[in-house]
Amino acid sequence: MAYRETEKMRQRKAQARQRIIDCTYECVANGGFRSARITRIAGLAGVATGTIYRHFESREDLFAEIFRTATQREVDKVAEALTTDGDAAVRLEAALRQFAERAMRGPMMAWALIAEPVDPKLEEERLVYRRAYAELFEKAIRDGIEEGCIPDQDARQSSTCLVGAIAESLVGPLSPTLAGQITIADIDKNKLVDSIIRFCMQGLTGTRR
Amino acid sequence: MAYRETEKMRQRKAQARQRIIDCTYECVANGGFRSARITRIAGLAGVATGTIYRHFESREDLFAEIFRTATQREVDKVAEALTTDGDAAVRLEAALRQFAERAMRGPMMAWALIAEPVDPKLEEERLVYRRAYAELFEKAIRDGIEEGCIPDQDARQSSTCLVGAIAESLVGPLSPTLAGQITIADIDKNKLVDSIIRFCMQGLTGTRR
Repeated sequence: MAYRETEKMRQRKAQARQRIIDCTYECVANGGFRSARITRIAGLAGVATGTIYRHFESREDLFAEIFRTATQREVDKVAEALTTDGDAAVRLEAALRQFAERAMRGPMMAWALIAEPVDPKLEEERLVYRRAYAELFEKAIRDGIEEGCIPDQDARQSSTCLVGAIAESLVGPLSPTLAGQITIADIDKNKLVDSIIRFCMQGLTGTRR
Repeated sequence: MAYRETEKMRQRKAQARQRIIDCTYECVANGGFRSARITRIAGLAGVATGTIYRHFESREDLFAEIFRTATQREVDKVAEALTTDGDAAVRLEAALRQFAERAMRGPMMAWALIAEPVDPKLEEERLVYRRAYAELFEKAIRDGIEEGCIPDQDARQSSTCLVGAIAESLVGPLSPTLAGQITIADIDKNKLVDSIIRFCMQGLTGTRR
């Protein structure tokens, strides 16, 4: 009789996989991808390191999964904020604020997702997601141009300016590694978010805020 | 008698080192860091691969040197543009335009310096240089606030918004790898640069352009 995986075995495997993912997420949220060593993850998940490699081909594959899951959550939140009430400019501002405020609440995870130096494989995932944000913004800018609340412009181009401005301006304050950098605890988060949003909305609309 | 390096030997070593650097630069300018394989560089430079490792500890160290030299050149050009005539807003616009136009003229090198997925070591160099650009812009924004041509704002924060907006909006058009991406030859470079500059200057000044 051929070997057949029972339902119970499948369940147990799926549970172990999820535990590995959860523990990796926890490590990254606390110390970035660099701190997420396989031995540490295995210890937290209560599995042998070999078990991790039965579920993921490599550390990079495991990280890519964490990166995709965590980033998709942020992309979804931005998409959700873009469906709130108000004209396209109001909705765009809500989405930018959502993005920045969430990053401020989980600065280490945000740093890991946005700017932590990572392997090229992960870096490529990052480029794909930056495109996902840009596409959401581009759609909203087009809506705004149609509604008349945003002046006519190259919506695609401006959407990438938004992604860049918000990501880059968060890099410094979120950074746990840059020497001499002020830490997230020292800065006035509301003021920081307001200042990023002002630049972005002025850039889009050309109207002083 | 102890072994002593003669002047002629020193010169020959320095020349080989420079040739390796020049050939690596050429590779990166034509196909990014990924295409710059050690065997290829050795072939171009007319040296054995072992010779390269006598001059540079690793491929990463060689790349870091190329990265630093090429990026410093761009930083210097931005700094130079910031010394042109006119008020701070005019000088900032000249500097942003200089950066974007130079990137358009050497798109593969610009992509390699700004956005190509690279090893974490190089990625860290990248963060340092983004800070160098931001500091130049920050100084000019402060000048502009003092001169009264730029409204009062958090100059440091806005400087990072500028760096992010300009870098990110160049990533797509410069990218040789993103699938389905329009290529640099297809786009109207002047229009692209104008649109980036408009977003940035509006973001800074809140005045429609």
